[in-house]
Amino acid sequence: MREIDDREAERHKAKMAKRKAVQDAEVGAKTVEKGLLIVNTGPGKGKTTAAFGLALRMLGHGRRVGVVQFIKGAWHSGEKDAFEAFGDRVSWHTMGEGFTWETQDLQRDIAAAERAWAKAVELMADPSIGLVVLDELNIALRYNYLDLETVVETLKARRDDLHVAVTGRNAKPALVEAADLVTEMGQVKHHFAAGVKAQKGVEF
Amino acid sequence: MREIDDREAERHKAKMAKRKAVQDAEVGAKTVEKGLLIVNTGPGKGKTTAAFGLALRMLGHGRRVGVVQFIKGAWHSGEKDAFEAFGDRVSWHTMGEGFTWETQDLQRDIAAAERAWAKAVELMADPSIGLVVLDELNIALRYNYLDLETVVETLKARRDDLHVAVTGRNAKPALVEAADLVTEMGQVKHHFAAGVKAQKGVEF
Repeated sequence: MREIDDREAERHKAKMAKRKAVQDAEVGAKTVEKGLLIVNTGPGKGKTTAAFGLALRMLGHGRRVGVVQFIKGAWHSGEKDAFEAFGDRVSWHTMGEGFTWETQDLQRDIAAAERAWAKAVELMADPSIGLVVLDELNIALRYNYLDLETVVETLKARRDDLHVAVTGRNAKPALVEAADLVTEMGQVKHHFAAGVKAQKGVEF
Repeated sequence: MREIDDREAERHKAKMAKRKAVQDAEVGAKTVEKGLLIVNTGPGKGKTTAAFGLALRMLGHGRRVGVVQFIKGAWHSGEKDAFEAFGDRVSWHTMGEGFTWETQDLQRDIAAAERAWAKAVELMADPSIGLVVLDELNIALRYNYLDLETVVETLKARRDDLHVAVTGRNAKPALVEAADLVTEMGQVKHHFAAGVKAQKGVEF
């Protein structure tokens, strides 16, 4: 175990007491309560998993959660199975038909995105729901499957107490502008580059 | 609904067919199966929530998950309550005593980190566990509460089929070096800056 002498202990204590005062003042200055528009974007991993982590928090606080997957299709995923433990407290909707290079059908991709958006609007209107996850909505916007202005205006007009988490690479600037909390997941290192395949529990 | 003419539909189809060929070749080239050392770092949000999202995936695949919180203390969190839905399939250990500026006691912080690490080693040795989340381990390493070399060597020597996810800002270079998958969460925009307080279901 690392040895601490009295002087180091004292210095640490004084420094931390000062830091606590700053911290408390900062926390005290924040008073606004509101439902947040959250965007997880960037090329790195963790955009969708972080949104599902938020869903878990919300469930832990006794609220219901809605999930709409805009791109992913019938693909079997661990998170979907896990959310079944919460019964009808999770309203899960896989509305995509798979990646664009799987369907190879632009008209069909657009129709799927529009059905997904209609479901999103329905979930956002449900007052029993505290968080709606719009998984890969950014992809549908990037390929112009949906009208950007309509989507952004609808998200901005959400209920005061509703959190919405949008995921996917290349978030549109207008969406970032409207959001309260935007995180860019940057890829520092990825196991795919070392020849490692998609791992159960990590990628799906 | 957006109108697509035949030429656009054909162009799209050809482009996506090409993309699928590239994608399939890439996926086929990846053959290694291994438990990953995952690091979520950076100043942005989503480091811990993404790790818990992975935990959810793992649970969905029927595996058990271990969680050790190195810094957070008795703080009540939504994710902890939510994981109770999985019973003893989640082995949860909050071993911290709160933020360093709360305890203001260096010796106590070090002792807590050492107890947390001992628990982490125990969970990593349990063959029923598929993923161990070491939440905020990076903070304990940053303040030299734990010996970096011991930690990194132990993580590298983990079981072949064990995934480990380490979270916290300022990941040490030696840990990044040892990791398979490293994501840097960058803060683009944060609601705290707009005076919004920590929100239930988002921050805790």
